[in-house]
Amino acid sequence: MTLGMAVIGAGYWGPNLVRNISSSAATSLHWLCDLDVERAAGVVAPYAGVATTGDLDEVLADPRVEAVAIATPAATHFELALACMEAGRHVLVEKPLASSLAEGRKLVEVAQARGVTLMTDHTYCYTPAVRRIREMVQDGTLGDIHYVDSVRINLGLVQRDIDVIWDLAPHDLSILDFVLPAELRPTGVAAHGADPIGAGRACVGYLTLPLPRSALAHAHVNWLSPTKVRTTIIGGSRRTLVWDDLSPTQRLSLHDRGVELDASLRDEDRRAALVSYRIGDMVAPALPESEALQGVVAEFASAIAQDRAPATDGHAGVRVLELLEAASRSLDSAGALVPVGDGGAGLGAGMGPK
Amino acid sequence: MTLGMAVIGAGYWGPNLVRNISSSAATSLHWLCDLDVERAAGVVAPYAGVATTGDLDEVLADPRVEAVAIATPAATHFELALACMEAGRHVLVEKPLASSLAEGRKLVEVAQARGVTLMTDHTYCYTPAVRRIREMVQDGTLGDIHYVDSVRINLGLVQRDIDVIWDLAPHDLSILDFVLPAELRPTGVAAHGADPIGAGRACVGYLTLPLPRSALAHAHVNWLSPTKVRTTIIGGSRRTLVWDDLSPTQRLSLHDRGVELDASLRDEDRRAALVSYRIGDMVAPALPESEALQGVVAEFASAIAQDRAPATDGHAGVRVLELLEAASRSLDSAGALVPVGDGGAGLGAGMGPK
Amino acid sequence: MTLGMAVIGAGYWGPNLVRNISSSAATSLHWLCDLDVERAAGVVAPYAGVATTGDLDEVLADPRVEAVAIATPAATHFELALACMEAGRHVLVEKPLASSLAEGRKLVEVAQARGVTLMTDHTYCYTPAVRRIREMVQDGTLGDIHYVDSVRINLGLVQRDIDVIWDLAPHDLSILDFVLPAELRPTGVAAHGADPIGAGRACVGYLTLPLPRSALAHAHVNWLSPTKVRTTIIGGSRRTLVWDDLSPTQRLSLHDRGVELDASLRDEDRRAALVSYRIGDMVAPALPESEALQGVVAEFASAIAQDRAPATDGHAGVRVLELLEAASRSLDSAGALVPVGDGGAGLGAGMGPK
Amino acid sequence: MTLGMAVIGAGYWGPNLVRNISSSAATSLHWLCDLDVERAAGVVAPYAGVATTGDLDEVLADPRVEAVAIATPAATHFELALACMEAGRHVLVEKPLASSLAEGRKLVEVAQARGVTLMTDHTYCYTPAVRRIREMVQDGTLGDIHYVDSVRINLGLVQRDIDVIWDLAPHDLSILDFVLPAELRPTGVAAHGADPIGAGRACVGYLTLPLPRSALAHAHVNWLSPTKVRTTIIGGSRRTLVWDDLSPTQRLSLHDRGVELDASLRDEDRRAALVSYRIGDMVAPALPESEALQGVVAEFASAIAQDRAPATDGHAGVRVLELLEAASRSLDSAGALVPVGDGGAGLGAGMGPK
Repeated sequence: MTLGMAVIGAGYWGPNLVRNISSSAATSLHWLCDLDVERAAGVVAPYAGVATTGDLDEVLADPRVEAVAIATPAATHFELALACMEAGRHVLVEKPLASSLAEGRKLVEVAQARGVTLMTDHTYCYTPAVRRIREMVQDGTLGDIHYVDSVRINLGLVQRDIDVIWDLAPHDLSILDFVLPAELRPTGVAAHGADPIGAGRACVGYLTLPLPRSALAHAHVNWLSPTKVRTTIIGGSRRTLVWDDLSPTQRLSLHDRGVELDASLRDEDRRAALVSYRIGDMVAPALPESEALQGVVAEFASAIAQDRAPATDGHAGVRVLELLEAASRSLDSAGALVPVGDGGAGLGAGMGPK
Repeated sequence: MTLGMAVIGAGYWGPNLVRNISSSAATSLHWLCDLDVERAAGVVAPYAGVATTGDLDEVLADPRVEAVAIATPAATHFELALACMEAGRHVLVEKPLASSLAEGRKLVEVAQARGVTLMTDHTYCYTPAVRRIREMVQDGTLGDIHYVDSVRINLGLVQRDIDVIWDLAPHDLSILDFVLPAELRPTGVAAHGADPIGAGRACVGYLTLPLPRSALAHAHVNWLSPTKVRTTIIGGSRRTLVWDDLSPTQRLSLHDRGVELDASLRDEDRRAALVSYRIGDMVAPALPESEALQGVVAEFASAIAQDRAPATDGHAGVRVLELLEAASRSLDSAGALVPVGDGGAGLGAGMGPK
Repeated sequence: MTLGMAVIGAGYWGPNLVRNISSSAATSLHWLCDLDVERAAGVVAPYAGVATTGDLDEVLADPRVEAVAIATPAATHFELALACMEAGRHVLVEKPLASSLAEGRKLVEVAQARGVTLMTDHTYCYTPAVRRIREMVQDGTLGDIHYVDSVRINLGLVQRDIDVIWDLAPHDLSILDFVLPAELRPTGVAAHGADPIGAGRACVGYLTLPLPRSALAHAHVNWLSPTKVRTTIIGGSRRTLVWDDLSPTQRLSLHDRGVELDASLRDEDRRAALVSYRIGDMVAPALPESEALQGVVAEFASAIAQDRAPATDGHAGVRVLELLEAASRSLDSAGALVPVGDGGAGLGAGMGPK
Repeated sequence: MTLGMAVIGAGYWGPNLVRNISSSAATSLHWLCDLDVERAAGVVAPYAGVATTGDLDEVLADPRVEAVAIATPAATHFELALACMEAGRHVLVEKPLASSLAEGRKLVEVAQARGVTLMTDHTYCYTPAVRRIREMVQDGTLGDIHYVDSVRINLGLVQRDIDVIWDLAPHDLSILDFVLPAELRPTGVAAHGADPIGAGRACVGYLTLPLPRSALAHAHVNWLSPTKVRTTIIGGSRRTLVWDDLSPTQRLSLHDRGVELDASLRDEDRRAALVSYRIGDMVAPALPESEALQGVVAEFASAIAQDRAPATDGHAGVRVLELLEAASRSLDSAGALVPVGDGGAGLGAGMGPK
């Protein structure tokens, strides 16, 4: 049995959802809903049997619709997701889950109360590269995690409503959340940013995230770089992984080299190392070619069918929102470290510049 | 007339000084001084007329010696430089100038009192690439400086006495000091670090340095990366410069592309840009091939001959020490921003972990 | 007035033609013709007003159809193009123009006799990169052309009916024909190939093409390489151009460096150069983003409207066929140089292995 | 017991031999002989116990001298090596072994007659990369060898006496000779070249070398390229190896991907493959850091001590000369394929343009 679905939002991301939900054997698309009905009609033209409307009630009145995918501006996620869940529908929400932590937590509560599935569309987590990274972090291939350094810079669209951290860092934060085991999640955030062009919001941002066991994560996000870089390094005690998302042929490379502490060394020379080095092979594993969003749709349908939490559930969306809000607070207080998780206050004013 | 010189220290850097002072037409090398006299003798074997000794007094008793280059462990810089200057000699000191800000300031005072030249060997500043960067920053080629992002990561020697920030960041900080005009120097430092291997000192470090006019500098230094990266991006309002020090053929690239704020834009779309983009050519300027240390020696001899301050004088060395001390204080206080310059306390405990 | 068109062939290339002809303001698409009518119907589903048929006569009976684009297997090009032209239609033919030189020449004759436009779809010639290369070759930016070295290797589909030279080299040969002025066209071809996997046809091929004025062109085509390379170097007396079609950011780079003969030099040293070197800047010009096939369609419509020969006309298609046939003959005679152009016999047996 | 040695030639390569022979535990250097005695004296200054002379007889009169390394212009190799061998000395000769095939064969004969060791200094064969390549070719890691494609291009010194093929291709040909088993050696050569700058000799060259079992080798050598490329691809039935000698971190990469013929496939589609593809991991093996010339000296001393042929003996030097002469003949006859080995005439006029 396929899952009957509707998509809300015919803008940038909606058409990709339409295409993937239409082509998946696990789902059937019945509606595309957008206030701009003409635009919606253009999007669904190639697909048979998909109706369009500007009225969400019409969608929710259709008993074939068991689940809704929401791809509208972030500020509207909360209200739309709430309406769908209160109408008993499962919901897949584009990242970020909502525009504030409080809203995100409310959505999780409602999903639990209603017994519906709430999934955050952290798309990157469903790429072959990130799936493989998660495996290698969790099966011990990398050993203990020492540091995670992420760079996501580009000549990017300066957004009207959110700064570069809320625009780009959700990718890095959701990936971090996905690949690290729960006991290694960040304990805080310090954020620095700059708005050198006078855009009214940070265009360059740096996030530092202390991790348990003396490890550290860091992300550099930047809208002003003429060169495009999307690289993440995950340093481990056994191996180090480099993910270069722009490399067509060598997306992941696993380096069997590193530094090992040798406390027994006693060398009087000033330059003496306390460590020894391991220089080994590098392996670039072959990755399957598959579209991440196909994996998102499959996971959503499968989680509903099996009545289990999806890999990037509402809680994952909430954790990312918590980090983003903490980052905004840190930015407002000269980069002071803001704790999260058990140690975090967890109260904030939501996304965007004030 | 050539400048009569001695070198102190036959370790890692001393032999390079010996070679360059010997081969320069502006200088004559008379002594190499090291406690390990045998090692010193091996270093000077190919050069005629260079004597060796383990006794600095013997060097300073030689009236041919007008200037001394010091390439010993940082902890000894202060005492040796002081002795040489008090004996009326000009002094060139390997970076860092001293092991604390207080020592560095004292050296500057003594140099002024004695009327001798004190130069810090910020070698990178004399590479063809950095000289060219300075020109392009200062002649307006880049326009207003928006951000400076520096990455210096490698599988590096974990030092016994200093952390990765004191080991590697002096390069980035001295370059920043050299290329930026005085009015754009950093106003503070926030530092984050991690010691995931239990080495007793930070092996991964991030420095954030607010600059005047809403600009920002940032440096990532790391001893634990299996891939070597040495890249600095300087974003400007007119052009952006990328310096990849490991690229054999394209060390500098100047990108005539960027983001321009256009306040008149009114676009109702959520993804609308407030900005327009400029996509232009990229130019990789040809750089002369020359050894940086040759430039250091030439600048030192020339500054003495012309009785002027060298480009990287004692003050430059002091400014770098001030930033390093501020970084250490920030590291000790969870990354809190520590002001420097007029706003900085300027008192600290020197280098290294406590 | 827009040009009324039909497309024949709904396979690999046809859908791209359908999309570009539909979206161009200069053309209107009326028919997609393919023996597999169901496939054709799937292709045109998103486009309004495009009929499908398996019968070419039906297309040619429609007076709205002024021009036909043919994207069928090469073996059928001749017959289909002939039929269309004899019905008074202008024709755009996917490369190669036909499956033998004799067929190609016949098509040119018929086009002239009928007064219709015959264009070869040498798509690469309409990319922003190749257009710019042509400009720089022809306006003297490069100076005299010294050599052209092209590498097009990949893990490619081993074709059933043609060898790697007929499959891939048409790209290189058509680009060479497009960018070089008529007086610099190749005077012959020597071809070497290998079939190490026993596929029944060459899977690795090398073409050497002497050019007038002591210049030389060479192309390496290969179906068996696990790494993908698409690079062309055009060496000139003033500058050298490197085209790396796989580089996202630096597709073209213009090197102002080279070797200059200095006949006055007299140096007795064995290693002495007879030449001097010029080391200058490198410039990577910004290129517009545009789809090549859009340019093909625009050129076809414009050439018809203006009653002029298109940039890649039937003659260009014939010249490429002549080089391909000469390459096949060379391959059959151990790499012997086969003259083309005025010196070439111009008779051959067409494409593919015997 | 160490091997007593002399070096002849204090030019470009001689000082490297001096340094490596001096530092090897297996050899002792007694003489450096060069007509320019002053230059020779400068070269040996840092080394104790090395005398200089302009007179070879003085060297050969010294009974401590058991072996001689010759690093003089190629035109003098024959006479000098002959003199040394006739005086009973083992000889190591810089590539090319001699300036003609006839000379090379004579040297081999004399070495056999005199019972001395004759070794060709094919330096590249002693790099860690090439040693590893040889292992992987010969132990079956690559499977059957399908093709070898080598590119060695650069802005190089245009030589006075030899063309680009004699200057650069000896590297590629000696490596090919070294890594391939005897039964896979080239059976002929076709050479194409161009002299577009009027230097009087080919500055751009292409060699095609048919190998047994339908395999093919090819080399592109070029003095006029502003970009430097030194890459060799060895395609095999099991894996393909890419050697990028300019990559600091990934000199060798072993690709577990390729094309496999599947004769059972019957696909009516025009684009149908006769093959299947294997997409696997890529491995970049760690290579030891070692200087190739150190390996040359060690192999020479070890071969003499063990009374065995060195890995690159006189026969290897002769095979390379045979290919070079065949290439020159092919160049003179419009690229006609010239057989070598059992099928080759083996008579030629030696190196260089006429």
